[in-house]
Amino acid sequence: MAQPDPIEEARRQWVAHGWGAAADGMAMVTSLTRVQQLVTERIDAVLRPLDLTFARYEVLRLLAFTRAGSMPMTRLGSLLQVHPTSVSSAVARLEAQGLVERQRDADDRRVVRATLTARGREVVEAATDGLNREVFEAPGLDADDVATLTGLLRDYRRRAGDLPD
Amino acid sequence: MAQPDPIEEARRQWVAHGWGAAADGMAMVTSLTRVQQLVTERIDAVLRPLDLTFARYEVLRLLAFTRAGSMPMTRLGSLLQVHPTSVSSAVARLEAQGLVERQRDADDRRVVRATLTARGREVVEAATDGLNREVFEAPGLDADDVATLTGLLRDYRRRAGDLPD
Repeated sequence: MAQPDPIEEARRQWVAHGWGAAADGMAMVTSLTRVQQLVTERIDAVLRPLDLTFARYEVLRLLAFTRAGSMPMTRLGSLLQVHPTSVSSAVARLEAQGLVERQRDADDRRVVRATLTARGREVVEAATDGLNREVFEAPGLDADDVATLTGLLRDYRRRAGDLPD
Repeated sequence: MAQPDPIEEARRQWVAHGWGAAADGMAMVTSLTRVQQLVTERIDAVLRPLDLTFARYEVLRLLAFTRAGSMPMTRLGSLLQVHPTSVSSAVARLEAQGLVERQRDADDRRVVRATLTARGREVVEAATDGLNREVFEAPGLDADDVATLTGLLRDYRRRAGDLPD
């Protein structure tokens, strides 16, 4: 016997309760939440054996893109679009794992930099290989749909003030 | 001075490092993660004053849709598409908040049911009013784009095996 999609079923309930103006938005938000869970499961399957979360992976990846493997903490926060305390806690954990070191900038002692260790470099490349192969090269939709979805998410971000001017 | 979008910048880095086949998938996944964060911030602004998370709100909402305000725990897990332990911990927290009660089914003692309290009913209706007004009725995209986005997310879910047959 066919079960209904729980999100479609919720949408029907919304309409039946007189909340029709909110039904499509509810379905969009709930679908986003659900797909994010499914994507996170795939990412965690790659990163968990390396003892990384996606947030900590992103820190390592940004550092590895720089020439010196190093970046001020404030710059990391700006690129990751997260609160400074989130960056601090991610970097503190990476430091405890021996993947990153923090030190004050030699030229400007007010600036704290995060720098990849040799081990951090190995781990971020292994993580990137795994994510590319297991997730990003097979993102779960056809190429056209990947582009359309990313474009709509970009529209959402732009309208939410999330994109630089 | 115009700063680049960090996600677009990451996509360029991916291509420059020879990972072109993974670049669009990376941008899609990172965009999903980012938009989910933005949506969660809006939802939390409504639910935090009510001391609810979206996961606990969903439990209350599903119970409120039933005639008796009551449902077996296993049925909740199936509708929410989450692990039984996640349902247990959400319901335990809701019980501690006085919004839900758990009891064994009178007809089948193996079945544990979650049931809304009178206070739970008040809270879920207040939360729904707030979410409809503040988030779902203004989901951040035009109606056509909301439909297209939800459709693509549904395609993703179908291909990931997330929809009932």
